[in-house]
Amino acid sequence: MHRLTLAQANAMIEAAFAKGAEMGLKPLTATIHDPGGHLIACQRQDNASTLRVRLAAGKAAGALALGVSSRTVGEMALDRPHFIASIDSMDFGGMVPAAGGVIVLDEAGVIVGAIGVTGDTSDNDEACALAAIAAVGLRPAN
Amino acid sequence: MHRLTLAQANAMIEAAFAKGAEMGLKPLTATIHDPGGHLIACQRQDNASTLRVRLAAGKAAGALALGVSSRTVGEMALDRPHFIASIDSMDFGGMVPAAGGVIVLDEAGVIVGAIGVTGDTSDNDEACALAAIAAVGLRPAN
Amino acid sequence: MHRLTLAQANAMIEAAFAKGAEMGLKPLTATIHDPGGHLIACQRQDNASTLRVRLAAGKAAGALALGVSSRTVGEMALDRPHFIASIDSMDFGGMVPAAGGVIVLDEAGVIVGAIGVTGDTSDNDEACALAAIAAVGLRPAN
Amino acid sequence: MHRLTLAQANAMIEAAFAKGAEMGLKPLTATIHDPGGHLIACQRQDNASTLRVRLAAGKAAGALALGVSSRTVGEMALDRPHFIASIDSMDFGGMVPAAGGVIVLDEAGVIVGAIGVTGDTSDNDEACALAAIAAVGLRPAN
Repeated sequence: MHRLTLAQANAMIEAAFAKGAEMGLKPLTATIHDPGGHLIACQRQDNASTLRVRLAAGKAAGALALGVSSRTVGEMALDRPHFIASIDSMDFGGMVPAAGGVIVLDEAGVIVGAIGVTGDTSDNDEACALAAIAAVGLRPAN
Repeated sequence: MHRLTLAQANAMIEAAFAKGAEMGLKPLTATIHDPGGHLIACQRQDNASTLRVRLAAGKAAGALALGVSSRTVGEMALDRPHFIASIDSMDFGGMVPAAGGVIVLDEAGVIVGAIGVTGDTSDNDEACALAAIAAVGLRPAN
Repeated sequence: MHRLTLAQANAMIEAAFAKGAEMGLKPLTATIHDPGGHLIACQRQDNASTLRVRLAAGKAAGALALGVSSRTVGEMALDRPHFIASIDSMDFGGMVPAAGGVIVLDEAGVIVGAIGVTGDTSDNDEACALAAIAAVGLRPAN
Repeated sequence: MHRLTLAQANAMIEAAFAKGAEMGLKPLTATIHDPGGHLIACQRQDNASTLRVRLAAGKAAGALALGVSSRTVGEMALDRPHFIASIDSMDFGGMVPAAGGVIVLDEAGVIVGAIGVTGDTSDNDEACALAAIAAVGLRPAN
């Protein structure tokens, strides 16, 4: 599979946490996924609550599942709640319709994975996700 | 695991029920959980309905999952219904977004478990949960 | 519902643990259920592992589901594995096909609930369950 | 929650992978869990297959669920296949009955989490898990 390397994944998490520290955010959790939504790496900071890895993963995997950011999934959930609810019950790990899950593209525009961040406000979570992608020279999908 | 002992758990349930009797509440159910959300003890009073243990547990486990009281989870559910609904479908036992689930800290501020109470109004349920925590000399998170 | 009272349930757990202490068993967990399989009370002793309440409950609820002891469910699982596997996947909380789950009858032979015990060998678990039933003057089904 | 810190978790994964490189093993995946079975960190090496995080997590979470190593869970599965199968269907993330999942104790003997490793033979996976625990000055249960 054409995907983020583990080295890239670890660097992205480090960059997301550095952004969180710079912004003074609450304890964060970040997950990095391959294009199929499967975890490559995750880290949950001390004092982050028990479900945080699943929340971050639900943002990222949901983004990959629908091909948009989890911010857009959140907007779709407001517009068409039954549609998103129906997808959420498909057993692929759960979808979290809130900003912080972003698809990652390589230079050629090919999907190489996704990142999910949770712990602070959704907007701040997404800022850390975007910082993580930029830190390894890649770019987010729309 | 560093957690509430069974003796503490039983004393907490006894105190919750004593508070309920003092306040003249309906039949109560109380659940005590370790920091990972797993049950240590529960008691459902006579004439309490069949799902009550799961309701109390859903308050407590949801609190631990997100790191806030179930009262706050309830407020989040009003603000962002789809976000909370998406978490609820993750198979960790179910989340109940209503007051009555409270995280328990030891003297050092470390999470040692949680309590969930259900049966009367959410406000009254929470009053019993807080009385239970105070009865064993511990304190609620937040 | 005609069921064990909470006072009976608590006395049964106390008796099960007393039997375990007398026999020198490992940390035990006991669950008491109403005739519909729903929890009335449970207690997990210190140092018992995280899933123990669900294991005990799976013995008792499985016994009620099929109308036999969980020892018999275990024998059925050896004889007809696909039959028991098919039931287990029905979403009623899970069935544990091993001795330690026993249906409880009142003087008139009416089902008033069930008890599940786990923590030591299945045979020892069942001995504690039977001691608990005897301690409150009731009797096991078959 | 009294648990492995993220710094310890990352150091353990690094040590597990160093052991794997020293032994010339296939691509490995390692997961680190808190005492309740929830993920703290994970890393899946390049070319490891898609389900590997869930496999490693199923070893570690199964160990915590039953209070024994996943090697012992594997032996139980040979002796009593229906018992282990019944537990596996309880929705706590899945149990993998094969060596490589080990409970981690602190100096005082308190459970602070667990590690799961997968990718090579179960024996080699377990060797890496044990090396990881030793690398941070902690010790395995049993």
